[in-house]
Amino acid sequence: MTDDTKPLKRPARRGFLKASGAAVAAGATLGAALGTSAANAAQTSSGSGHKPAHDGTHADDPQFAVEPFYGVHQGGVVTPQQAHTYVAAFDLTTTKRDDVIALLRAWTDAAARLTRGQTAQPLPTSDDKPAPDSGDVLGLGAAGLTITFGFGPGLFTKDGKDRYGLAGKRPAALVDLPRFNGDQLIPEKSSGDLFIQACANDQQVAFHAVRQLARMGYGNLQMRWGQAGFLSGPKGQTARNLMGFKDGTNNPPTKDPALMNQFIWAGDEGPAWMKDGTYAVFRRIRITIEHWDQMEIGFQESVFGRHKYSGAPIGKKNEFDELDLDAQDKDGNSLIPDNSHVRLSTAATNNGQRILRRSYSYNDSTNFYIERWPPWRQETEYDAGLIFIAHQRDPRTGFIPINEKLAKLDMMNQFTTHVGSAIFAIPPGAKEGSFIGAELFEA
Amino acid sequence: MTDDTKPLKRPARRGFLKASGAAVAAGATLGAALGTSAANAAQTSSGSGHKPAHDGTHADDPQFAVEPFYGVHQGGVVTPQQAHTYVAAFDLTTTKRDDVIALLRAWTDAAARLTRGQTAQPLPTSDDKPAPDSGDVLGLGAAGLTITFGFGPGLFTKDGKDRYGLAGKRPAALVDLPRFNGDQLIPEKSSGDLFIQACANDQQVAFHAVRQLARMGYGNLQMRWGQAGFLSGPKGQTARNLMGFKDGTNNPPTKDPALMNQFIWAGDEGPAWMKDGTYAVFRRIRITIEHWDQMEIGFQESVFGRHKYSGAPIGKKNEFDELDLDAQDKDGNSLIPDNSHVRLSTAATNNGQRILRRSYSYNDSTNFYIERWPPWRQETEYDAGLIFIAHQRDPRTGFIPINEKLAKLDMMNQFTTHVGSAIFAIPPGAKEGSFIGAELFEA
Repeated sequence: MTDDTKPLKRPARRGFLKASGAAVAAGATLGAALGTSAANAAQTSSGSGHKPAHDGTHADDPQFAVEPFYGVHQGGVVTPQQAHTYVAAFDLTTTKRDDVIALLRAWTDAAARLTRGQTAQPLPTSDDKPAPDSGDVLGLGAAGLTITFGFGPGLFTKDGKDRYGLAGKRPAALVDLPRFNGDQLIPEKSSGDLFIQACANDQQVAFHAVRQLARMGYGNLQMRWGQAGFLSGPKGQTARNLMGFKDGTNNPPTKDPALMNQFIWAGDEGPAWMKDGTYAVFRRIRITIEHWDQMEIGFQESVFGRHKYSGAPIGKKNEFDELDLDAQDKDGNSLIPDNSHVRLSTAATNNGQRILRRSYSYNDSTNFYIERWPPWRQETEYDAGLIFIAHQRDPRTGFIPINEKLAKLDMMNQFTTHVGSAIFAIPPGAKEGSFIGAELFEA
Repeated sequence: MTDDTKPLKRPARRGFLKASGAAVAAGATLGAALGTSAANAAQTSSGSGHKPAHDGTHADDPQFAVEPFYGVHQGGVVTPQQAHTYVAAFDLTTTKRDDVIALLRAWTDAAARLTRGQTAQPLPTSDDKPAPDSGDVLGLGAAGLTITFGFGPGLFTKDGKDRYGLAGKRPAALVDLPRFNGDQLIPEKSSGDLFIQACANDQQVAFHAVRQLARMGYGNLQMRWGQAGFLSGPKGQTARNLMGFKDGTNNPPTKDPALMNQFIWAGDEGPAWMKDGTYAVFRRIRITIEHWDQMEIGFQESVFGRHKYSGAPIGKKNEFDELDLDAQDKDGNSLIPDNSHVRLSTAATNNGQRILRRSYSYNDSTNFYIERWPPWRQETEYDAGLIFIAHQRDPRTGFIPINEKLAKLDMMNQFTTHVGSAIFAIPPGAKEGSFIGAELFEA
């Protein structure tokens, strides 16, 4: 992260040496050379005191990767999944439409800076005011940061009130999620009027982004929930979740624009302001991994419908081998069990519908837990599991019908409990000079 | 991570194709070539389906770094700090000394395997039993994993009982920590009979290690607490904590063996079984970072006694410039404020004592919090802060007197609350063929 302003001028009365701003100055010089133009990714991702990346030093270093912020679509949807995330939702407290617009403008500008590896806002030129950036990722680079903004139902109407004159613009696809079988939702881990997902190759960079943006909203919003997540996969391979299985194998390929347009990006069917946006469903799924670990491998594979180590459908050899739902063993039983996760969730048993999962594991230390299934252990357990995030063109044909079936029939439910839930409209990407959601407010 | 056993032989009656174990077989072949000898680090850190590292592919990849497990000292103390950690403490439930010994033997063997990038135990050769490894880091490499074991007071006596015949062997240095001013300790985040710290360049690898080891103890122990942590610093530079300041600048250099022997490693002053071990103090310190972020930069610097961006002592230019506690401004005030963190904690004001801090930031999402200081906000806040871990030869001259002063006088206390606490004896490293703590049980 760099700053593109002048170094701190420390007031002489405080006895600070002028030179103490030297480290900032190094970053500032670099930033100044860039001016206010759309910064060259490689140049701005270098921190103060670092060699800038345009000398090739950081060419392949994921810590210094830069993802574009402005564009037709927001980043962080079809962007190859980074190793870390921090997601958060906020309740708006302001009653003024202009406050919301001003916040979204400020967020857009700050997000563009952050994704270039800059501070959220220029640092002040004196030390007698708070810095608009916590500074904890100085020198760390952009780390492939993407920032994705979303709008919850509460932005449109809340407690029956149309706070911002937007009630008529709520997309039909932004439904209130039904209660699913087995849901044990915690209000403090659910819902939200505004949503931010930061994804990066570095955990501190992801959290830093949300922290700066949240702070810009104080006075107009309150934090509702925040959640860190991670996912590690060998390079170029599907990552494994905490159950030890590859997660996301059957995702529609993000590099297929036709498929993305068909299943992920909103088209002309909804309000114009959502065109090229998408809809995100968030579920915080706690997994009793201690329990899961006691299960025999064959049973675990029956639950998933896949082999654990290869990721192949049961009976097949390779991860991406086609799922043959008709395959039977010599006794006439389905090779892919009827209640297996893959059979219940695959497009073939869901009217051809596909959703784009972009999930992360989470790990919030430990707390006392009462298991819902035998052997019903009651003790301190990992508060760990999956931050399930799915993008789709319409949750009414995507997540909702699929999860209604899963919630009732999936064998995996013995090990998973949905404790958080939220839905957001993810508007299209911002144009430079404009802001996220401009089409909603200006329409 | 690899496995060094034969591939799964899937029972034909279940209709599995033999070929489905192919991915495991690849790893097994690699492992088999290594035999049971001390594995070559570079070879075993490669996952199934990966090119092994000895072709040079992973030479500089932190994901495939390997740290030695066996040695005079345990790893994870003077090892350069990896980017992620998972620490956990356990309450022993068994009443049998032999169970504890068997557990430590099993942990030692598994830890040696894990740090080489192998599965915790060889995978079974059939699928009708649970795998002794969750498999979620297959292919991820050792990621510089270190595993450090510790013994809490409860191993020696608990509720007045000498459960394992070890009461007489408790080192005097393993004191019960006093209550410090401002402590708000949560029992479920404190104490523990046994301690494991896993550090790695990959978050999933760190958690995976603790998870496998914990599971090996079920029946003989219960989890007391677990805690994930992270810390990112630009390569070769001191990392910043969530307050945005460099943390650890004044640490004694770990590459100076004389200094380590003087301040960190236990010598002949205590029981022989602890020689070459150390003592770890763990504190979970919640930080009200929302509050901190509102403070002017000059004030933040006064709290630390250092400049924020350079990390230099106030009035100096560079991070490692000497701390001049006598320096004054023109009005005769101390440049390094009397109640600043660096003045209160530095060796010069603590009888020359030094401790080795090896702290991580933590981030356990959000929860409702009542701030202890103005403006006394009461709302959903980040449950984030610092996992303070300090190693020292004797906490009675190290952490305890330093923290007694800090707890009363440190300006930083307005933003920090100690909510978890524990102390552990970290025994010396294990010899190959022996186990961690052998000297304690065999003495």
